[in-house]
Amino acid sequence: MGKDIRTAILGASGYTGAELLRLLNAHPSFAIAALTAETQAGKEMAEVYPHLAPRRLPKLVKHTEVDFSKIDLVFCCLPHGTTQEIIAGLPKNVRIVDLSADFRLHDIAAYKEWYGHEHRAGALQKDAVYGLTEHYRERIKSARLVANPGCYPTSILLPLLPLLKGAYLDLSPIVVNSLSGISGAGRKVAQEYLFTELDGGVSAYGIGRHRHLAEIEQEVSKVTSRYSLNPVPHCPVSFTPHLVPITRGMLSTIHVRLNDFEADTAANLVRMAYKDEPFMTVLEKGSASTHQVRGTNRCIMSFHPGRQSQELIIVSVIDNLVKGASGQALQNANLMFGLPETTNLEATAIFP
Amino acid sequence: MGKDIRTAILGASGYTGAELLRLLNAHPSFAIAALTAETQAGKEMAEVYPHLAPRRLPKLVKHTEVDFSKIDLVFCCLPHGTTQEIIAGLPKNVRIVDLSADFRLHDIAAYKEWYGHEHRAGALQKDAVYGLTEHYRERIKSARLVANPGCYPTSILLPLLPLLKGAYLDLSPIVVNSLSGISGAGRKVAQEYLFTELDGGVSAYGIGRHRHLAEIEQEVSKVTSRYSLNPVPHCPVSFTPHLVPITRGMLSTIHVRLNDFEADTAANLVRMAYKDEPFMTVLEKGSASTHQVRGTNRCIMSFHPGRQSQELIIVSVIDNLVKGASGQALQNANLMFGLPETTNLEATAIFP
Amino acid sequence: MGKDIRTAILGASGYTGAELLRLLNAHPSFAIAALTAETQAGKEMAEVYPHLAPRRLPKLVKHTEVDFSKIDLVFCCLPHGTTQEIIAGLPKNVRIVDLSADFRLHDIAAYKEWYGHEHRAGALQKDAVYGLTEHYRERIKSARLVANPGCYPTSILLPLLPLLKGAYLDLSPIVVNSLSGISGAGRKVAQEYLFTELDGGVSAYGIGRHRHLAEIEQEVSKVTSRYSLNPVPHCPVSFTPHLVPITRGMLSTIHVRLNDFEADTAANLVRMAYKDEPFMTVLEKGSASTHQVRGTNRCIMSFHPGRQSQELIIVSVIDNLVKGASGQALQNANLMFGLPETTNLEATAIFP
Amino acid sequence: MGKDIRTAILGASGYTGAELLRLLNAHPSFAIAALTAETQAGKEMAEVYPHLAPRRLPKLVKHTEVDFSKIDLVFCCLPHGTTQEIIAGLPKNVRIVDLSADFRLHDIAAYKEWYGHEHRAGALQKDAVYGLTEHYRERIKSARLVANPGCYPTSILLPLLPLLKGAYLDLSPIVVNSLSGISGAGRKVAQEYLFTELDGGVSAYGIGRHRHLAEIEQEVSKVTSRYSLNPVPHCPVSFTPHLVPITRGMLSTIHVRLNDFEADTAANLVRMAYKDEPFMTVLEKGSASTHQVRGTNRCIMSFHPGRQSQELIIVSVIDNLVKGASGQALQNANLMFGLPETTNLEATAIFP
Repeated sequence: MGKDIRTAILGASGYTGAELLRLLNAHPSFAIAALTAETQAGKEMAEVYPHLAPRRLPKLVKHTEVDFSKIDLVFCCLPHGTTQEIIAGLPKNVRIVDLSADFRLHDIAAYKEWYGHEHRAGALQKDAVYGLTEHYRERIKSARLVANPGCYPTSILLPLLPLLKGAYLDLSPIVVNSLSGISGAGRKVAQEYLFTELDGGVSAYGIGRHRHLAEIEQEVSKVTSRYSLNPVPHCPVSFTPHLVPITRGMLSTIHVRLNDFEADTAANLVRMAYKDEPFMTVLEKGSASTHQVRGTNRCIMSFHPGRQSQELIIVSVIDNLVKGASGQALQNANLMFGLPETTNLEATAIFP
Repeated sequence: MGKDIRTAILGASGYTGAELLRLLNAHPSFAIAALTAETQAGKEMAEVYPHLAPRRLPKLVKHTEVDFSKIDLVFCCLPHGTTQEIIAGLPKNVRIVDLSADFRLHDIAAYKEWYGHEHRAGALQKDAVYGLTEHYRERIKSARLVANPGCYPTSILLPLLPLLKGAYLDLSPIVVNSLSGISGAGRKVAQEYLFTELDGGVSAYGIGRHRHLAEIEQEVSKVTSRYSLNPVPHCPVSFTPHLVPITRGMLSTIHVRLNDFEADTAANLVRMAYKDEPFMTVLEKGSASTHQVRGTNRCIMSFHPGRQSQELIIVSVIDNLVKGASGQALQNANLMFGLPETTNLEATAIFP
Repeated sequence: MGKDIRTAILGASGYTGAELLRLLNAHPSFAIAALTAETQAGKEMAEVYPHLAPRRLPKLVKHTEVDFSKIDLVFCCLPHGTTQEIIAGLPKNVRIVDLSADFRLHDIAAYKEWYGHEHRAGALQKDAVYGLTEHYRERIKSARLVANPGCYPTSILLPLLPLLKGAYLDLSPIVVNSLSGISGAGRKVAQEYLFTELDGGVSAYGIGRHRHLAEIEQEVSKVTSRYSLNPVPHCPVSFTPHLVPITRGMLSTIHVRLNDFEADTAANLVRMAYKDEPFMTVLEKGSASTHQVRGTNRCIMSFHPGRQSQELIIVSVIDNLVKGASGQALQNANLMFGLPETTNLEATAIFP
Repeated sequence: MGKDIRTAILGASGYTGAELLRLLNAHPSFAIAALTAETQAGKEMAEVYPHLAPRRLPKLVKHTEVDFSKIDLVFCCLPHGTTQEIIAGLPKNVRIVDLSADFRLHDIAAYKEWYGHEHRAGALQKDAVYGLTEHYRERIKSARLVANPGCYPTSILLPLLPLLKGAYLDLSPIVVNSLSGISGAGRKVAQEYLFTELDGGVSAYGIGRHRHLAEIEQEVSKVTSRYSLNPVPHCPVSFTPHLVPITRGMLSTIHVRLNDFEADTAANLVRMAYKDEPFMTVLEKGSASTHQVRGTNRCIMSFHPGRQSQELIIVSVIDNLVKGASGQALQNANLMFGLPETTNLEATAIFP
């Protein structure tokens, strides 16, 4: 099998770009044909990321320098808001996995509400498929544009959707607290992300208004509006993200109330729902820890009875840079090009 | 003012003992008269804790070697379950602040349920005052035995109690997620607390069954049983603790539903309740971070509206070794001996 | 004792400024009269450093807004190179401790060589006293301008100078490797200081050309030129600094060759030299660790025989923000104003 | 290519065992036939290492339960001192890579001196090949027993040996300071390796007497005795190891004096010596950082001129668990079985 699918990474100077390069190492089909960056254009990747020095990689160029007629696949790793015109301008032959938030919301009014400006490629929005692989696999296979989910939504929706689809939950508030490694902020140079400002401490942020809530609401409401007597989309999710001083890893603790089920039953229902999934694990015992998924595309979940009856606490972990970003992007690209979904995604977690 | 109150620390080889010694440095009234340890008896503190080498401190001895007739105050830093007979055996002249869990639960049946064995000093239990200073100050002043609260309950009860006492909360589940620094586990030598097992990862533990829930239920139920039509004590608290790779610091994120109030109003109510308290801060803006309290006896709280109406998210931070243990113990001891409550507790947080 | 010495901190928005405020908390004599910053002028300290919120502090103003005729003491915490004109412009009544490198080098030619531009206040340079307290105490007492040493030179010169002064060392290369916590870089917002770039890794930097070597060479040569047959100043120090992912702390490992002495003898010589010093400790056994000095003004040293005969390895630790910066600055200011040198500098190390 | 080489890992419950399992994932030739442990025998690997749960692996058994007649290759990951009789008892058909120190020293008198007891399999010692692959490749190919080098010696000898072999160094003291991640201590449960004891601090240990010095002396002396007029083996290496709070990674800073060469020339000489080596990199610019090698089998070196003439500072980095242990073991095993040396060892470093 030759490396015959010509692949470009736009925004390769960010962490998700670098992580894609790590995951694409020795990929049997995707050949790196172009890497773009704006302020760093002209540099070798080894200057921008010394850990990539042993790899032979194209130099960083501006995206306007790429001949996209010779590109089959684009991974778009640009910052939110900068992606829309660029993707709209790509020729039809190019298939795209977009890691930004720009095409995740089907409703451009919701986009405007959460992101504060009109969507600049609204016509494309309706064709974009939300790339939560386990729930949109068939549509992803034939999609031209996949909107890769956010890291928080990935860790939260994966355990919740099977329970919601089965109508197993009392829709009293679903209370989600998530802990994120700092790489979730990308390589953004800002005081709040300095080592000295984060080392040895924890904090919450974006309480009640983190933009990832928009995706969560969209996906949850799609399900709840189907089985609700009330046709109004309904999403009673409370979401509080936290920053913890680790580089990689995301843990979501999800508090729900079950409709006449026990926690064990809920675990079994989710286990059954995901029984053929290569990257989903529901633990038989113990509690999920981010160490179990570091460097992998896996989502591991554990289900725990609460102190109150019918109370269920779910712990869900991913590597925010892999299943929460670049790994899921590769999983989707594998599907789009008819390759085994797990290609280059079966590494063992790196521990300790 | 002379150092005239003869003070012993039992279990001085643990982290709370060491932290008490840090806080007692140059205390104007409490003189260290004895330090005890069991396996480490006979050693100098400088061997057990090299950072204490510059201090002139008594050698560690077994507690049976101490002449308690010459001791006025005992800080008891022994592990849970080992404290009861020892405290029961102390002469009446000695006043005690116990940092273990042994005397926190008034109900010895509850003690047995949570700790798995009969209480061995049940007669003392009823005299013990729960040492959450801001809520039991007057009783603490005259107590012989103060049961210093756990770190999690301290961080959770301080913001919740004023809201519960004012009946401002809808008693739908109160969902608490707490993040704890590793020093909360003490100096226990176990595989799960190795650097390599914790660095770079996060996990939840004790879900739905952490023993600190017993204290939380006791204190919450005292309040809710007063204003409930239903005389049955009621505590709808769901509590999930997490370990995060920091040494010191505890952050609790508390999700509640307000009775027709806004988050700002709730913040004001708690601010008013604590307006004369030296160690309580309700932020005017921003979100509480553990960095703001490291090394201090302070509890800092921030109040945030949720996405749903009447939803309130509270963030509460303490240093688990100070306000969550040794600092609150000293605050209580200061009160018990008629000293200014803030004596030796007014350091600025250590940041960065 | 009243707070009668009116104190200004210039550049209070950096870490050394914040650390000075921590150390000055409840200082019996130094009253904070002004705090300056440039881009952050107009803000409350609580905005810039939330951990200082509980303190009542003046608002940040530009240094041009301060009436220096009403100031007795200035701590100058400005970046290197920005300090010279400002200090030259202060009225004569003001005494100054400068934490920058601007006045550390007596020789303005050496300054130009290392810093790349002409000194802009050369006339003052010769009056400045190098503020390594233990070696310049008498001159500091009467100095108007004290040039507070760099963190690396402090940790290196303190163990070396007594050995050099006694001519106990063979002047074959003295090989120094130092490990620094990240706060040594200040609050500088740059990619290389992001959490994600530093967490979980170590590196060396500035090899053979770190500017602190200029100070080391100056101070070592002063001694070696005295006892050398060769009157040429001589400093055979090789210095390699490293960044380690801790926030505070500095450890220097110094490899020297002794003139017919054993390591134990060398330890005793240094111990004797510092026997009356409040902040110098030579360990009797064990190896110095940064944990032993965190938050304190102490320098702890340990002396170890090497594998080869006459080989001595010295380990020296300080808290880079305290003895390596703000603590030594306060120690010097205490001396300059006739106060006990240890005032507000006797805290116990914060561990764990 | 089938998985036809039956492989056992003895001591699979330690970190080097777990790391071997990570590296052997999907190896085309080595099939895991047996995993042994002593106190943990009877457990599934998923209990001992939850991150390995997704893998289908044999249960842990005692080594006495393994039928070694059906084993082709043994990786021996047992603690130092426990390996000798076990390896001596293996049947002749089994080829062995031993990750302990037990067979690294050719001279059993030196073994006794450093390890404090008689060697218990002295006859085997002389057949063991020191597994520093780049310097013993041909002998490793045909060896029955390879003694895999220690992590410190690997990081130190790789840059030093080409310079020593070329007689480019003045044999004045070679001063080595190394920084090690905590995983170098294995999964040993001891107070000194607790998170709380290591987080936020650094220290030196084993100064002048770390056992890895024995290996360094052996390998250096082999070279220096060849070109010395003095036939006495000579190794003027001073070695000071340090613990830094990272989990993986090792950095050695090596100070040498060149014989009439410049640092650049030395870099070129080493670059030429390793020009065909798949895992050796001499940087063209910049300084080697452990982040560049995390998770990989690579050794990256950078060469820097010192402040004094002819002074050279070398920085050398490896992942202590990969090139410093399990990766080099796999590299050696690949060679022993005629496989491409790089099989399963070409992953990109994991950063951030």
